[in-house]
Amino acid sequence: MTDWSTDRRAALLDELAAASGAIARRHFRTRFGVDRKADASPVTIADREAERAIRDILKREYPDDGVLGEEFGADGIDRRLVWVIDPIDGTKAFISGRPTFVTLIALLEDGVPVMGVIDQPIVGDRWIGIAGRPTLHNGKPVSARRCGRLEDALLAATAPDMFTGEDAVAFARLCRSVQVPTWGGDGYVYGLAASGFIDVVVDGTMKLHDYAALVPVVDGAGGRITDWQGQPLTTTSDGRILAAGDPACHAEALALLNG
Amino acid sequence: MTDWSTDRRAALLDELAAASGAIARRHFRTRFGVDRKADASPVTIADREAERAIRDILKREYPDDGVLGEEFGADGIDRRLVWVIDPIDGTKAFISGRPTFVTLIALLEDGVPVMGVIDQPIVGDRWIGIAGRPTLHNGKPVSARRCGRLEDALLAATAPDMFTGEDAVAFARLCRSVQVPTWGGDGYVYGLAASGFIDVVVDGTMKLHDYAALVPVVDGAGGRITDWQGQPLTTTSDGRILAAGDPACHAEALALLNG
Repeated sequence: MTDWSTDRRAALLDELAAASGAIARRHFRTRFGVDRKADASPVTIADREAERAIRDILKREYPDDGVLGEEFGADGIDRRLVWVIDPIDGTKAFISGRPTFVTLIALLEDGVPVMGVIDQPIVGDRWIGIAGRPTLHNGKPVSARRCGRLEDALLAATAPDMFTGEDAVAFARLCRSVQVPTWGGDGYVYGLAASGFIDVVVDGTMKLHDYAALVPVVDGAGGRITDWQGQPLTTTSDGRILAAGDPACHAEALALLNG
Repeated sequence: MTDWSTDRRAALLDELAAASGAIARRHFRTRFGVDRKADASPVTIADREAERAIRDILKREYPDDGVLGEEFGADGIDRRLVWVIDPIDGTKAFISGRPTFVTLIALLEDGVPVMGVIDQPIVGDRWIGIAGRPTLHNGKPVSARRCGRLEDALLAATAPDMFTGEDAVAFARLCRSVQVPTWGGDGYVYGLAASGFIDVVVDGTMKLHDYAALVPVVDGAGGRITDWQGQPLTTTSDGRILAAGDPACHAEALALLNG
């Protein structure tokens, strides 16, 4: 496999996040009527403009790489290297004026995430993960927190009612076993886990553009991120995600999710 | 009743919020072991230091006013004017590194909130409400959003499972009637409602220090904030809160909460 720690694409990640963040900042907290059509909302405009800006840079610098974006679809995704973009992850946070949405950008090599950016442009939080390098937060190495036992853990998930059927039973079992459950956050909370402020993150219905960028960020901070069977996340994962700062906590949570 | 729009206590609100915010910033995202005792956690230290700083200023400037704080209790609360302080509202947000906790400071006159500050010191959001004046966000007047019909509303609440019994049934009925429900936020979301980004906020178990500061902020932006019976919030309210940017939306939500 390629040595990504020295690839010059790494130098591009800051430029991509900065271009996207400038657009998100311009549209954040702009007033709009609640009855305005969804396709003219600030988040939709910001989504499109930000993805366009990222794609323009990629096309200029790496015209042979494939690109998959939430807004403008797939372009050359059969190639060895594919960029995956979610310009505004956390749409509800964005439209309600909460500064907890993020831009997510990932690079996949043969379907495996090898670079990832989680960027919150209002607060000024940028996590960069690159396979073979420690994760950086605003340029400084960070590490996930040792937790050891799940009963000491702070958990983050989108909402307590995000799961149905057997998944809801499994999730409730996990929630009862942690010290503090908290709600909301989207991709942002995976960055906070990499920095050692959150111990466990669970999600249930993520798409590739939601989870690809998280993988190198969590891995490079010494954490562990997999699907609910403990398998590495790839293009064919089912969207159920379990991340933990401490691999021992991850193992304990995995066992609880699987009964 | 006093004309609060010209009282010189209004000039003190920025100083109080700035003193508290400096302390919260110093302790925010400081690493600590998850097994450390709760009374030595960063949030507890920040809580105490921030309330102490606010009390010191009040004691110097208005020694005859009463003070009620979450950390250091009641002092002269039988007086006509009483300050009510919650130095860190949103403890879980604070300890998980989310920049959505707030400092809440209110002034009560005979039990009625007449001044309120909602301050988020990481993002730099400060709402100030004073009876008889328009609410300010970072020094500029803001107004809540007209929404008209609840079916167009964006709702914020701490979590979908925060209520039990009949309250849970009433809350579920309300949630089904809005366009977008969102979770998390504590006092912060009432500021965002005053600025017109959130239409309805519901809470169920608030204490006086959680809700007193919100009243002048929401009222001064043209919104409406009451208990679940539609009554004004005072020291004896039961902690169930309903706020809306649009009084018509408030009336519709109130009817739904009461069957």
